[in-house]
Amino acid sequence: MNGYYKTEPWSIVEEGFDPSMQEASESIFSLGNGHMGQRANFEERYSGESLQGNYLAGVYYPDKTRVGWWKNGYPEYFAKVPNAPNWIGIDVEIAGEQLDLHTCELHDFRRELNMAQGYLERTFKVGFRGKTLEISVRRFLSIKRDEVCAIRYTIRSQDFSGSVRWTPYIDGNVINRDANYGEKFWEMEESGAEAGTGYLVARTRKSGFVACMTMGYVMNLNNHKIDPDPEVVEKDDYVSNRITADLNPGDVIVFHKFVSVLTSLDHERSVIVANGRRILNEAQAAGFDSLFEEHASQWEESWSHSDIIIDGDTAAQQGIRFNIFQLNQTYTGRDERLNIGPKGFTGEKYGGSTYWDTEAYLIPFYLSTAPQEVARNLLIYRYKHLQKAIENGEKLGFTGGAALYPMVTMNGEECHNEWEITFEEIHRNGAIAFAIYNYIRYTGDIDYLAQYGLEVLIGISRFWRQRVNWSDVKGKYVMLGVTGPNEYENNVNNNWYTNKMAAWTLQYTLEALDHVMESDPARYDAITRETGLHYKKERAVWKDIAENLYFPYHKNKDVFLQQEGYMDKEQVMADDLDPAQRPINQHWSWDRILRSCLIKQADVLQGVYLFEDEYDLETVRRNFDFYEPRTVHESSLSPCVHSILASRVGKYEKAYEMYLRTSRLDLDDYNNEVSEGLHITSMGGTWMSVVYGFGGMRIRDGLLSFDPQLPGKWKGLSFKILYRQRTLHVHIEKSRVTIENLHGEGTDLYLMGEKVHLDASGSVVADLAPVEK
Amino acid sequence: MNGYYKTEPWSIVEEGFDPSMQEASESIFSLGNGHMGQRANFEERYSGESLQGNYLAGVYYPDKTRVGWWKNGYPEYFAKVPNAPNWIGIDVEIAGEQLDLHTCELHDFRRELNMAQGYLERTFKVGFRGKTLEISVRRFLSIKRDEVCAIRYTIRSQDFSGSVRWTPYIDGNVINRDANYGEKFWEMEESGAEAGTGYLVARTRKSGFVACMTMGYVMNLNNHKIDPDPEVVEKDDYVSNRITADLNPGDVIVFHKFVSVLTSLDHERSVIVANGRRILNEAQAAGFDSLFEEHASQWEESWSHSDIIIDGDTAAQQGIRFNIFQLNQTYTGRDERLNIGPKGFTGEKYGGSTYWDTEAYLIPFYLSTAPQEVARNLLIYRYKHLQKAIENGEKLGFTGGAALYPMVTMNGEECHNEWEITFEEIHRNGAIAFAIYNYIRYTGDIDYLAQYGLEVLIGISRFWRQRVNWSDVKGKYVMLGVTGPNEYENNVNNNWYTNKMAAWTLQYTLEALDHVMESDPARYDAITRETGLHYKKERAVWKDIAENLYFPYHKNKDVFLQQEGYMDKEQVMADDLDPAQRPINQHWSWDRILRSCLIKQADVLQGVYLFEDEYDLETVRRNFDFYEPRTVHESSLSPCVHSILASRVGKYEKAYEMYLRTSRLDLDDYNNEVSEGLHITSMGGTWMSVVYGFGGMRIRDGLLSFDPQLPGKWKGLSFKILYRQRTLHVHIEKSRVTIENLHGEGTDLYLMGEKVHLDASGSVVADLAPVEK
Repeated sequence: MNGYYKTEPWSIVEEGFDPSMQEASESIFSLGNGHMGQRANFEERYSGESLQGNYLAGVYYPDKTRVGWWKNGYPEYFAKVPNAPNWIGIDVEIAGEQLDLHTCELHDFRRELNMAQGYLERTFKVGFRGKTLEISVRRFLSIKRDEVCAIRYTIRSQDFSGSVRWTPYIDGNVINRDANYGEKFWEMEESGAEAGTGYLVARTRKSGFVACMTMGYVMNLNNHKIDPDPEVVEKDDYVSNRITADLNPGDVIVFHKFVSVLTSLDHERSVIVANGRRILNEAQAAGFDSLFEEHASQWEESWSHSDIIIDGDTAAQQGIRFNIFQLNQTYTGRDERLNIGPKGFTGEKYGGSTYWDTEAYLIPFYLSTAPQEVARNLLIYRYKHLQKAIENGEKLGFTGGAALYPMVTMNGEECHNEWEITFEEIHRNGAIAFAIYNYIRYTGDIDYLAQYGLEVLIGISRFWRQRVNWSDVKGKYVMLGVTGPNEYENNVNNNWYTNKMAAWTLQYTLEALDHVMESDPARYDAITRETGLHYKKERAVWKDIAENLYFPYHKNKDVFLQQEGYMDKEQVMADDLDPAQRPINQHWSWDRILRSCLIKQADVLQGVYLFEDEYDLETVRRNFDFYEPRTVHESSLSPCVHSILASRVGKYEKAYEMYLRTSRLDLDDYNNEVSEGLHITSMGGTWMSVVYGFGGMRIRDGLLSFDPQLPGKWKGLSFKILYRQRTLHVHIEKSRVTIENLHGEGTDLYLMGEKVHLDASGSVVADLAPVEK
Repeated sequence: MNGYYKTEPWSIVEEGFDPSMQEASESIFSLGNGHMGQRANFEERYSGESLQGNYLAGVYYPDKTRVGWWKNGYPEYFAKVPNAPNWIGIDVEIAGEQLDLHTCELHDFRRELNMAQGYLERTFKVGFRGKTLEISVRRFLSIKRDEVCAIRYTIRSQDFSGSVRWTPYIDGNVINRDANYGEKFWEMEESGAEAGTGYLVARTRKSGFVACMTMGYVMNLNNHKIDPDPEVVEKDDYVSNRITADLNPGDVIVFHKFVSVLTSLDHERSVIVANGRRILNEAQAAGFDSLFEEHASQWEESWSHSDIIIDGDTAAQQGIRFNIFQLNQTYTGRDERLNIGPKGFTGEKYGGSTYWDTEAYLIPFYLSTAPQEVARNLLIYRYKHLQKAIENGEKLGFTGGAALYPMVTMNGEECHNEWEITFEEIHRNGAIAFAIYNYIRYTGDIDYLAQYGLEVLIGISRFWRQRVNWSDVKGKYVMLGVTGPNEYENNVNNNWYTNKMAAWTLQYTLEALDHVMESDPARYDAITRETGLHYKKERAVWKDIAENLYFPYHKNKDVFLQQEGYMDKEQVMADDLDPAQRPINQHWSWDRILRSCLIKQADVLQGVYLFEDEYDLETVRRNFDFYEPRTVHESSLSPCVHSILASRVGKYEKAYEMYLRTSRLDLDDYNNEVSEGLHITSMGGTWMSVVYGFGGMRIRDGLLSFDPQLPGKWKGLSFKILYRQRTLHVHIEKSRVTIENLHGEGTDLYLMGEKVHLDASGSVVADLAPVEK
């Protein structure tokens, strides 16, 4: 669908309506505000293909596990974000006929996601018995008042005379398409409707989360408020008003629907209806324009520090803004109980649960674009799940406080049920350890170790210690039966990346132990007591493993080998494939994928990226040159790392190709699956591919370091970075880079390899190295 | 539950009723006759735990696949033998109260499976308000008239006076406990009832098999026929008569229920009701005693050539008879459309479908105990599925007529949906090739190659050719990503057994090609045309692979290595385990099982057993000594092979232990799962452990060879063998073996390593070698 949407710097625009694209567009045009989010379903009834989706942050349903064949250790349920009662609905009838964009005579359809101001707007004309009505609909989820949604539904008659009926409603009769057993996730608890308003209270089954949606509306005819008597409908699972008005040629009726959406995460059940009513009333009293204005200014403020400006490449510009916009509307960092699901609020897939994506791809984004507390909250989320991670380890037979964090979770319990993932994709444990290190090296908040970090590190190290075993044959420790980030290999032995994460964690835990022992002996004693740590014994074994773990290596090519036996595979490169066979996960049987040497995302490069300091440039280059041609990038998490490394080794064409692939993954639907939702978590990777890749940003010895280079097409690149109470502005041009200290004290930093000092309110400039041809 | 059932040579007996054992006993006491079979559910209502099961051979339902996570290549459905309408039901009320053995006052309960005559009988006393009734119930599925079932339900009043009501019924309101989506598998099509009779016609959904059950009954009071007016109930899914009679102290009422059970495999829909009525009437006219007599004589005839007599060890004797009895009541070889499911007619698990068990464990049994046509029919079953096997290969990306036979099937289509099994447990293809070879070497029917065998071999060889690839690293062909018979390892590289089966198949196909080319050039040309065989090219590649396939090997111990990397595992032996942890598949998480070195069934020993001629005794012994201690025998198919090899290497204690384990697997419930059904297919392995193991039978150069030895406890062992139109009787004593030619021409054979001639009606005797201590 490359090119289906218009390429504009601040908007995503669809011109003309293609029903076969509707589910894709519902994903692309999604709205959210951290508290809630929704796919771009139409307000009025739509009989074509559509995936209805309204989601509430932190609200989940434990859907009973469905398996083909049960394996010991599988969890009882998969936590899913339930599709919530539909609060956007407004049925429209024209002269008694339902307006339905799938069947009506439709002209001049245009849909826009305005990222600068955070709203969704549709305009179109409807032909009706030879007459024409002009319709425009604007909707936003207030990012200022995050429990409020407002819709403005405008109908102008060109030459139509007749009645129009609006039926704003809240409908609890919703399903999840991915429900394992077709169960309903909600039960209705209370409803009420009267003229001008209605509300619905629903409770998720089993998990008992309560949601209360309350609606109101205001109508204007040619700028004058009108208030026809509505027909009130009140059922257990559905409330509505039906309002009819006559329309004559030239008339404009503007129908505003206001909704408040509250959950029991923030409101007691006993007051949720009253609170919902109050919040609705306040919003309605403020009015659409005023609500919109405060919402748009909030977005303006957000962009003022998170925008990235790319000069000379609108597709790239649109791509990065789309990614930043989606990240900022998915997670605001206000609530430490929340995390970020791979699809955010844009689809059902992956259940809205937390994956290793957060630690591996989002922590860097939030570290640099949000206050320190945001990343810290994401770390504490895992700290609070430590006990559950230990229990998860116990379910698999590990003992003595060994923590295996879940692959997929809402509340710390494992949700996933595929043995090769659930039990074997254990590198996630390493990502959680690495995030602690990453947070501390960026923020300098070393006290985090004593407060929270060390306990997590001990639990994870204990896991690694039990997960490896000694091999007499190799004279090394080995780790058998794992799945790396490259999920196109399962149950392999000695996955280089997983072994790397394990050895690194053990080493870092030893350092962390020593640090806390010295810096905070009382806390160290407390942790030792609580965890039952046997310093001498455990330390010795961890050290031994860290130093004697086996790493597969390919002598011929002098590269790290993804796993044992990888070179036994037939070496067919991605470029050798018939393009009609791609993505292979949609064209090949699973066993063919497993047997091929093709890589979903390159484990070794992921490790080289994380531990780049340990390798010289030639090593990085050799590994990149070896793995890139074997990688099909069918994980959304793949291209960003390749883009960063390509920048690192000076392959700017490749870096740019990979950048477009990550930043426009959804807009151009590379993997033919955007209808299921957007790849929210990989959007953090897109940000990294700009800032770490083209921006060449790193942390070196606790200082920021920049070594930027622009892809050929770009004239300029600017972004801001929050760093230890400072705001820096980075502006990269073809031949030079300027870094300005917008806010905060002076600091040293590395620029093009040289240490320089940046004064408070000062700036530094450097020439770029010429690009190798 | 070792010891729960009494050890008798011809019966399985339960004394006293333990409701917690009911589902296990329902499996153990199962009845069948090749056409149908059933678990030992009670006739009267039972409110305790019970798995109802009535099954019809060849009737299946395509149950929509259920998966946790879909993998490309999975089949759409799993074929399952549906639990058929209940045709044994007779509700009994005593003075208006339902008789229910779960709640009533029960005394002197005894249940017997009489294997000599093939019936099930229960006797018990019921206390009722201080009075006592004596009840006995006998049931059999006629092995002579395989569409007929008869039940004799006798009630004698000791001191009870009052009414008794019998409600014989047919009930279509049945479910499969293992239905993927709780769907009903049957829809009711027709029913009818009148005084004295009733019938039900049901059709399986989707697959459209029709079953018609018709019942009648006859009552005697104190040996005089009575015929009280019944209350007739006729519903769509249930028909019954309710008959009430008065019982006084000393009275005996005998209630006979007769049922005919017909399916559309044998009867047109238009006549099935009339045929069912006719067959019922004939049976009823013959009467219970006469039906039973003809049934019992048929069993007697069957035992006369299939019995194995063990002298001096009742547990072993009971074990082998139980196995032979179950095999003979599951499959009679009369119908080439049928095959044998792992649970036969004794449970729902595995869906009643065909696995590689047939070729690997049952062909030998039928070759030696049944006419040649029976084994040949089982081979032709696969020949008829060749096209489906090619299509199955295509679904996975194989081309050019490469055949991958399904792991699990009813009609040739793959049913299983676990990637590590469905796509990877491909050694099944080898078993199907080997069965052709095995059939021919036993029967001498070499023409089978030209008629059917060669086409199958070509398809399978083409699969192996594509499934391997060349490894530059090894300078050998490798086979990556497979699961061997040891399913406690998944997705391994170069599984020794699978590679062995592949190399052997390629070699045998070359021999078969040459044989048919010479012996039947016209047929050879036809096969070449039909299969598009490119003799020169394909032959050369097959030969190259057969000669250059990689086989992992453990140098230190000089043993064949199960798979690459096996020795990297922690080497913990089965005897080192806490017994409370066994079976490990019920106590360990799946990843712990996968990572351990413990073996479900030993691949290498399976291969050594099949190709024993290729290895000297020391090689067999070394491999046995290496793998036996690592094997937990949690596959029912495991102990028999170990028993045979233990006999081969002179470890008779171990052979005996393994023999008891295979022959009494269900009776002693070694794996704590008999409630799910019996391990029917492994019973062929039990037979092999006696005849191939202790009997030391082999085929050598087309001749039978015997090299027997008895375990210490046994005084004698006798069995009969059908071999190329001859019936031989083998009688083994402590110090000598006698082979008698009961029927057929004279033949050469090997006895204790010496070639001898056995005359028509003659016998040969040899001394046994003394047992090494």
